Amino acid sequence: MNRLANESEMKWMPLLYGVTAGLSTLVVVFMLVWTFHFRGGFAWQDFPAIQFNWHPVLMVVSLIVLYGHGILVYRLLRNEPKKKLKLLHAIMMITALLLASVGLKAVFDSHNLAEPPIDNLYTLHSWVGLAAVICFALQWLFGFVAFLFPGVRHSLRSSYMPLHVFGGLMIFGLATTAALMGLLEKAIFSRVSYAPLTAEGILINSTGIAIASLSLLIVYIATRWQYKRQPLPEDELLLADQLAE
Amino acid sequence: MNRLANESEMKWMPLLYGVTAGLSTLVVVFMLVWTFHFRGGFAWQDFPAIQFNWHPVLMVVSLIVLYGHGILVYRLLRNEPKKKLKLLHAIMMITALLLASVGLKAVFDSHNLAEPPIDNLYTLHSWVGLAAVICFALQWLFGFVAFLFPGVRHSLRSSYMPLHVFGGLMIFGLATTAALMGLLEKAIFSRVSYAPLTAEGILINSTGIAIASLSLLIVYIATRWQYKRQPLPEDELLLADQLAE
Repeated sequence: MNRLANESEMKWMPLLYGVTAGLSTLVVVFMLVWTFHFRGGFAWQDFPAIQFNWHPVLMVVSLIVLYGHGILVYRLLRNEPKKKLKLLHAIMMITALLLASVGLKAVFDSHNLAEPPIDNLYTLHSWVGLAAVICFALQWLFGFVAFLFPGVRHSLRSSYMPLHVFGGLMIFGLATTAALMGLLEKAIFSRVSYAPLTAEGILINSTGIAIASLSLLIVYIATRWQYKRQPLPEDELLLADQLAE
Repeated sequence: MNRLANESEMKWMPLLYGVTAGLSTLVVVFMLVWTFHFRGGFAWQDFPAIQFNWHPVLMVVSLIVLYGHGILVYRLLRNEPKKKLKLLHAIMMITALLLASVGLKAVFDSHNLAEPPIDNLYTLHSWVGLAAVICFALQWLFGFVAFLFPGVRHSLRSSYMPLHVFGGLMIFGLATTAALMGLLEKAIFSRVSYAPLTAEGILINSTGIAIASLSLLIVYIATRWQYKRQPLPEDELLLADQLAE
């Protein structure tokens, strides 16, 4: 389907994006209510058990909310020049990667500084989550070299593009899975408040459902062909420049 | 990209499908080794704790392996007539749905018949898993009415098709997430063998990684446009018949 989307096919896009923004806010609010109301708020290395709380909050803010909106810049700001969008996309993604690294530091500290220390990397959540972060770092690096580094051949860029898009969506799916597993794991480890369902249990499960719905919506907006950005005249000029190089 | 895929673009497809079949076998073998070697094998209502074991095995066989291969029939058997593929797809999916129902019965029994009974539906795994099965049942019903029920208008069929494909892949993603959460949950509930990593812990985590890799590969094969099935001359005749109705 190569034809351009017409106006009526675009009419639901603002509503869908509004729901995405609303769900993103809800997810962050749920995470903060959970952290402050049930888990003692935030601290750094002086209180390792509380330092842990940075982990779920930072991972969700970085790998779900920021990453998700980083995917959507090409849909939401469809009338901006491509060069600007690429730069914005790269900046949002590297910010997400840095926040995720701080989130990882928080969980390793909370294990290593505990008395007695807690084992690292033995749960399936930790394996899946670490795989997501490592793939994300490689994806950012490959993306930077392929799309922002000067002098890369245009043919190489276009043949890597479908893999970048597919990989990006798969890493997002992996991060979503890791987030839900993390919520489940924390709920069970503090099982006193989980079975039968209590306020904290319902809040944790609702956060998980909200995260899953948000990810689904972002993948929908990103993959629906009618919403794909159409090249601007400036993009063609940019391309001509590259081809002439 | 509307052009037909050429032969060289199809050359990796048999290899990718071979890896998919191998990974599917590996996942089932992992699940059976886990069940028989570490979890006491299989029983029905006389031994509720052992009856539970039907749950993980049946859910993974139905919602991951059978569902995944049900998605791939249109890619793997690309030279068969469409009517035959639709029927095969529907039969594989209803079989998956029935096996999943037996898998759900096993877990509810294992909770309700335990002494004392164990609470149902309080973990995030149970919420996500149940959502996946309910969405799957609705998806099957809508798919049956839209694509196999006689007399449905062709325009309705083609406008529902993209939603059916997107929904099917999202439900598959949800099922994958639920499977990984289920493995994690069971590992933590039997935590004596999980931290630090023991043979059972490594087997559980490896099963999770194998399931995630299998799902990723199936989504890749299903969404790569070069692998999409091209209509046969018979399909055109079928379509002409429908339009003439």
